[in-house]
Amino acid sequence: MNDFHGWVTGNVATAIRHRVAASGAHVADFRVASTRRWNGRDGQPHESTSFLSVRCFGPLADNVASSLDVGQPVVVAGRLEVEENEREGTRYRDVVMLASGVGPNLAFGSTTFRRTVPARRPAAEPGPAAAPQQPGTPAAGPGRAPAA
Amino acid sequence: MNDFHGWVTGNVATAIRHRVAASGAHVADFRVASTRRWNGRDGQPHESTSFLSVRCFGPLADNVASSLDVGQPVVVAGRLEVEENEREGTRYRDVVMLASGVGPNLAFGSTTFRRTVPARRPAAEPGPAAAPQQPGTPAAGPGRAPAA
Amino acid sequence: MNDFHGWVTGNVATAIRHRVAASGAHVADFRVASTRRWNGRDGQPHESTSFLSVRCFGPLADNVASSLDVGQPVVVAGRLEVEENEREGTRYRDVVMLASGVGPNLAFGSTTFRRTVPARRPAAEPGPAAAPQQPGTPAAGPGRAPAA
Amino acid sequence: MNDFHGWVTGNVATAIRHRVAASGAHVADFRVASTRRWNGRDGQPHESTSFLSVRCFGPLADNVASSLDVGQPVVVAGRLEVEENEREGTRYRDVVMLASGVGPNLAFGSTTFRRTVPARRPAAEPGPAAAPQQPGTPAAGPGRAPAA
Repeated sequence: MNDFHGWVTGNVATAIRHRVAASGAHVADFRVASTRRWNGRDGQPHESTSFLSVRCFGPLADNVASSLDVGQPVVVAGRLEVEENEREGTRYRDVVMLASGVGPNLAFGSTTFRRTVPARRPAAEPGPAAAPQQPGTPAAGPGRAPAA
Repeated sequence: MNDFHGWVTGNVATAIRHRVAASGAHVADFRVASTRRWNGRDGQPHESTSFLSVRCFGPLADNVASSLDVGQPVVVAGRLEVEENEREGTRYRDVVMLASGVGPNLAFGSTTFRRTVPARRPAAEPGPAAAPQQPGTPAAGPGRAPAA
Repeated sequence: MNDFHGWVTGNVATAIRHRVAASGAHVADFRVASTRRWNGRDGQPHESTSFLSVRCFGPLADNVASSLDVGQPVVVAGRLEVEENEREGTRYRDVVMLASGVGPNLAFGSTTFRRTVPARRPAAEPGPAAAPQQPGTPAAGPGRAPAA
Repeated sequence: MNDFHGWVTGNVATAIRHRVAASGAHVADFRVASTRRWNGRDGQPHESTSFLSVRCFGPLADNVASSLDVGQPVVVAGRLEVEENEREGTRYRDVVMLASGVGPNLAFGSTTFRRTVPARRPAAEPGPAAAPQQPGTPAAGPGRAPAA
C-alpha cells in the first residue's frame, strides 16, 4: 500500500480549532508556518515559508487545544495527505498532517508537562552490556521508563 | 549525498546528560524507548520496544535538560546516524537521532511553554482565497505568526 | 531552523517535465499519486489519493527523465515545501518534494540498473563482531560497498 | 501508540539474503551503508558512514532479490526498529528498516522497470483548475495514473 509520511518544525499560525465531531471523536485543527532560511549563491539570505494544516484526534486534540497558542514553536510528525476541496466554485488544495505526535519545540523554549494519559507498565532497556558507554557518564544506568 | 532521516514518538528512558563540550557547545543526550503494539495473526497482543539515543545542541540542549524527565512522552525528529564504538574490547552500536525538534508529546499530557529564543518577524499566510474554508469555521482568519 | 521532511510511495501521475534552467541546472518535475486504502468502521473499504509534485536536480533529474514513465510506482524522499502561486487571478497551492532520492518501487516490479555517477571509494562495515548473526546466515560476511 | 519512521539513501552493502520463512512469507534482508559528507569548522572534509539493515516482505522481497546488487545506490523508506540480540554470550544491537518502499536511487544511475504486481484502477487528479500551471507547460494535462 502507498504511504506519505513526514515531520515538520515550525510555528503555530492559527488559533486551535477544537470540536467534538458527530461521531463523538475529539478533533483539533491548526495551521503551521515552517520557514526555511538559506544563503543563496549570491551570498544573500533567502527564506521560504510553507503553510500546512495539522489535524489531531482524541487526547492529543484536547491537550493541543489547552497547551498551544498562536506563535508557539512546534514539532509535529505523522501521516500526510493532500486534500482537494471545492467551495463556491473555487478549488482549494491543502496539505494535512495527521499527527502521531505534537509538542512545543524545545529548540525555542522550555516546558512544564502534566500527564493526562496514564503510563503503561515500565519497559527496561536490555542490560548495560548492550548500552554504549559514553566517556564521563555518571555511574547510574538507564532508568526504568514507562512504555506508554 | 546520502541521507538518513526520521522521527520517533516514545518516552524518555534515561536522565538527561547535559554538558558543555570542549568547543563550548552545549550538548544534551538521552535515551528514548519507543514501544510499538500490534495484534498478531494469533489474535494476541504483541509489543516491541526500540531504544535509541537523542543528541541535542545549543538552546535545544539547555531546554531539554530543564524540561524533560525520565518517563515523559516525547516526539523527536531529525537526522539519524548509527555509531559504532569499542570499549574494553567489546563493540557497541547505537542509533542516534541528531534532533532538529524535540517536544513533550501532547498525545499524553498538556504543557505550558516559556519562550527562551526570541521570535523573528511575523510571516502571514497568503490571503484567505488560498485557504480552504472549513464548514463552520469562526470568522477569524489565520493569525499572524512569528516565523521563528 | 525549521524543517519539513518526508517520504512517499505512489505512482508517477504525469509525464516527466525535463529542462535546463537559465542557470544551467538540469531540472525534472512530475506529479505523484499516492493512494491510501483502509477499512472503515463500517467494515467497508475506503481510499484516499494525495497528489504532490516532485522536483529533481542534476543527474537525478536526467535519470528520472530517462527512466520513469506515467503509471510507474515510485518511492521518493526529501525536503517538503508548500508553494503558493497566482495565475490569471486564481491562487494555487502545491506541495513539492525536493527529492534527495527517487527510485522505481520494487514493491511492484523489478529493475535493471545502469550507474551513471561513479562510485566513491569503498567503505567497509566494522568487523563481524559488531554485526548481529542471523540464524542460518551463509558464511559470507558483509561485502565491501562503495560509499558513493 | 508510539512510532519510529524514517528514510535513507545509501548503497547496498551486502548480498541480498532471500528466503521463505516457516510461515510461507517471502523475506529479503540486506545491509545499507549511508555515508554523510560535510565540511568541518576546520574547513576539512569529513565523512561518517551509518550501517543499517533493511527487511522486505512479499513481492518487494522477491523483486529486491532479483534487482539489487552489492554497491548499488538505493532509497528506502519505512518503519524503524532497534533489535537487541544475544549470541554466544555477546549482545548485539541493530537498526532495522521494515521497508514500505525500496528502489535503486536514480541520483546515481538509470533504470528499466518491469511491473510484476498488477496496477489497480486508475485515479485521475481533480480537474486542471486545481493544478498549478507552470509557465511553458505543454497543453497536455495530467495523465491518468493507475492508483496501484
